[in-house]
Amino acid sequence: MDTHVLELIKPKKLKSPVLIEGLPGIGLVGKLAVDHLIDVMGGKLIAELYSPYFPHHVMMQEDGIVTMVKYDFYLVKGSEHDLIILSGDVQPSAGGPQYELNSIILDYFKNKLKGDLVITLGGYGSGKAVKKTTVYGAANNAKMIKKYSKLLTFGKSPGPIIGAAGLLLGIGQLKKIDGVCVMGETHGGYVDPKAAKALIKVLSKMLGFKVSVSALDKKAKESEVLFKKFEEMSAQEQKAKDSSDATDLSYIR
Amino acid sequence: MDTHVLELIKPKKLKSPVLIEGLPGIGLVGKLAVDHLIDVMGGKLIAELYSPYFPHHVMMQEDGIVTMVKYDFYLVKGSEHDLIILSGDVQPSAGGPQYELNSIILDYFKNKLKGDLVITLGGYGSGKAVKKTTVYGAANNAKMIKKYSKLLTFGKSPGPIIGAAGLLLGIGQLKKIDGVCVMGETHGGYVDPKAAKALIKVLSKMLGFKVSVSALDKKAKESEVLFKKFEEMSAQEQKAKDSSDATDLSYIR
Amino acid sequence: MDTHVLELIKPKKLKSPVLIEGLPGIGLVGKLAVDHLIDVMGGKLIAELYSPYFPHHVMMQEDGIVTMVKYDFYLVKGSEHDLIILSGDVQPSAGGPQYELNSIILDYFKNKLKGDLVITLGGYGSGKAVKKTTVYGAANNAKMIKKYSKLLTFGKSPGPIIGAAGLLLGIGQLKKIDGVCVMGETHGGYVDPKAAKALIKVLSKMLGFKVSVSALDKKAKESEVLFKKFEEMSAQEQKAKDSSDATDLSYIR
Amino acid sequence: MDTHVLELIKPKKLKSPVLIEGLPGIGLVGKLAVDHLIDVMGGKLIAELYSPYFPHHVMMQEDGIVTMVKYDFYLVKGSEHDLIILSGDVQPSAGGPQYELNSIILDYFKNKLKGDLVITLGGYGSGKAVKKTTVYGAANNAKMIKKYSKLLTFGKSPGPIIGAAGLLLGIGQLKKIDGVCVMGETHGGYVDPKAAKALIKVLSKMLGFKVSVSALDKKAKESEVLFKKFEEMSAQEQKAKDSSDATDLSYIR
Repeated sequence: MDTHVLELIKPKKLKSPVLIEGLPGIGLVGKLAVDHLIDVMGGKLIAELYSPYFPHHVMMQEDGIVTMVKYDFYLVKGSEHDLIILSGDVQPSAGGPQYELNSIILDYFKNKLKGDLVITLGGYGSGKAVKKTTVYGAANNAKMIKKYSKLLTFGKSPGPIIGAAGLLLGIGQLKKIDGVCVMGETHGGYVDPKAAKALIKVLSKMLGFKVSVSALDKKAKESEVLFKKFEEMSAQEQKAKDSSDATDLSYIR
Repeated sequence: MDTHVLELIKPKKLKSPVLIEGLPGIGLVGKLAVDHLIDVMGGKLIAELYSPYFPHHVMMQEDGIVTMVKYDFYLVKGSEHDLIILSGDVQPSAGGPQYELNSIILDYFKNKLKGDLVITLGGYGSGKAVKKTTVYGAANNAKMIKKYSKLLTFGKSPGPIIGAAGLLLGIGQLKKIDGVCVMGETHGGYVDPKAAKALIKVLSKMLGFKVSVSALDKKAKESEVLFKKFEEMSAQEQKAKDSSDATDLSYIR
Repeated sequence: MDTHVLELIKPKKLKSPVLIEGLPGIGLVGKLAVDHLIDVMGGKLIAELYSPYFPHHVMMQEDGIVTMVKYDFYLVKGSEHDLIILSGDVQPSAGGPQYELNSIILDYFKNKLKGDLVITLGGYGSGKAVKKTTVYGAANNAKMIKKYSKLLTFGKSPGPIIGAAGLLLGIGQLKKIDGVCVMGETHGGYVDPKAAKALIKVLSKMLGFKVSVSALDKKAKESEVLFKKFEEMSAQEQKAKDSSDATDLSYIR
Repeated sequence: MDTHVLELIKPKKLKSPVLIEGLPGIGLVGKLAVDHLIDVMGGKLIAELYSPYFPHHVMMQEDGIVTMVKYDFYLVKGSEHDLIILSGDVQPSAGGPQYELNSIILDYFKNKLKGDLVITLGGYGSGKAVKKTTVYGAANNAKMIKKYSKLLTFGKSPGPIIGAAGLLLGIGQLKKIDGVCVMGETHGGYVDPKAAKALIKVLSKMLGFKVSVSALDKKAKESEVLFKKFEEMSAQEQKAKDSSDATDLSYIR
């Protein structure tokens, strides 16, 4: 079985389709964002991607039916743009598979859906919890930077963009597909619905759609409570460890 | 050398063939079950699968002849169904090989043997030794769940099904082959012939055949004796370790 | 660059050619044996095998010229059989590459050289230094066992035969090429020219050729001296370690 | 996406083109040398190599635009030879990818640019800091050794040449492309612009071009200062460690 896209529905007359990717990554920011969009905007499953690079298991559901590990493409009809939302539960952690998967995703989007703009979503791990999420941008050509320079902070955070969020832009350069990566600043050590909310707000301005984000507000509060507890526990553990280390040292030196 | 099925015999006019898989897995439950069926029901070797994904050695037998690492397909003629039993000594531990092997197995079964039902056997590791083995089920479509809901416990144990037992069902979805996974509850830490016996009893009802399981009864008793000894030894070791740890701590803190 | 055999010379009218493999393995027994044969019998390089599965370096020689990592096929003309001797400095340590390399070796031997008998040489690691080397055999069909049962000890040492020594026989079964593995008993922890000498003596009887083994006698004596020194050192180290462990224990318990 | 060369410009009428490789390796000597040549001699980017064997990320630049991981081919016009300079930021660390990449590089150079001489640059790690850099050579045929024996020290340092610096020569043998590896002696533990300078001096004589090396002089001085600081720190750490080890031992024995 090779990596392939299984088309369930061949949508007709798409309105200037945009591919929005939100696979698992830093702070799960991208995944939270796309799963929220699919949920709230009523995404319709139109295609699935299967690959031997995914783990060698199936998941047994609560109804007893198994599902394969896969990526899902959802269609959300919009006024300016139809959205093609890419969601999944895993990403391969090696070059070869990532290049193959993202290449096949772009071929499907360009050749079958006639799309020419990809927006990838992710977290930008800054190692600190912030009050207000800065939304950074990166793009695969100067035209995109010009177009979105008022909504995104470009060029303030040089460095690698790992996985689909980066490679869809890079391989997009080779395939002449415009690409923008939208990254919400996040701590990096925990799941961050607040950053996901910030992403969606920017995204809605970029693409001209409206969507409720109240469900993410609720998740963000739960997440903050959890994070505070976690930080307190960490601080206590560190304290205990420090005093224990001190004791150890008295024996070693 | 690519992965390929070598047909030794091309069986004619098979009666509604069912592929039964029992490769090594949790508690060796599936493997014990299929090897018992092949042994007691007189399975005839009709095909072999060879693959570069298997270990790079051959096994020297007691007669001095070497055998390659392979999977074997045995035919057992039945009244309602002819059984095609898949047995082997290893499973690859990575995605790519597993997807390829199970895809090729299903192609052979569907295209050459004209089969459309796969039953995979395995253990469901619960971490405890049970008096009576619950037999869980999972399936790759709702029709199968309905058909076997009286014989199998469906949907009580969500989670991953790893390897051939899972992927034959998953890839079967893509290839339109019905699939049911039959799992015997087992401790997980030792070989469990009792669970294998429970599987065979359910399987015989599902497919309408009769078979003696007395050989497994004998193995189950031996296995129980071994397990009790093992548990006693573990308990003693743990005790020794606990007291030793305590001593250690007095030096460390 | 794919794995391929580069033919330097296309030998004509070979006399019942036998492929003799001696790649690195336990005690370097097989490699010592074939390198001795090539050296003493005047092997002529007729072909080379290149592969991306070999290490990603070249070796700089003393004349400043680099050589790739490769396998070499040497031709030694004989009275009963022409020998095709396969020698090299490495073996891949994984299934896929081993299956591919050995498959390609057999295709070259069968299709280009019209050979139908492969003899693989190796060490059988027994973990002890022996006075007289037993030469074990394994074969890929019953005809070979019958033919060589007076010269080789068959079936006394079941277990895996790893790498080319095993897979050339296994894949040979699929390609209908007779195969015999000739293994010299060896300690396993050091290079063993004495076992290589024993192999060559048996091999010369199997194939009806004569060859001096005095160079191996000399190497065997050197190797024995080294091994005794090594054993003495190990014994002293073990002693030192034991006393140190004893001291440690007094602190731990 | 397979490994491929993307031609940006198809240069016409090249004057006896020479491929000069300087990918990352020991002491970054080769990379420093080629990046200096491109910089000072005004290299023009004519082609790029993309590969799934590269890391699965893109790099975000300071202008906000992402770039893929790739190799670059620069053209520098010369009087005797046009130089095709190969530069990049990474090298794969495994056989398969290295064989494939270097094979494709040579095919592009031979078939598209009609070149027949490759010079690879690297460091020869001697483990010591030297006053005057010896420049070693290795070649893939005797003709090259004769031709450059006055400029390079051949055959004084047998051993492996790892990665592109070695494989371009080795695979070059198979493809009938002359190859010379030029190695500057270097400590191996730090970046060495002085060795890069020595390489360029020899290279300019081999190929008859002139180039300023003053920028490397400056980098060499900075690097020496850094290295001395590093050595002092290491010496102090070692001292501290030695005394600490001594203390430890007093508790263990």
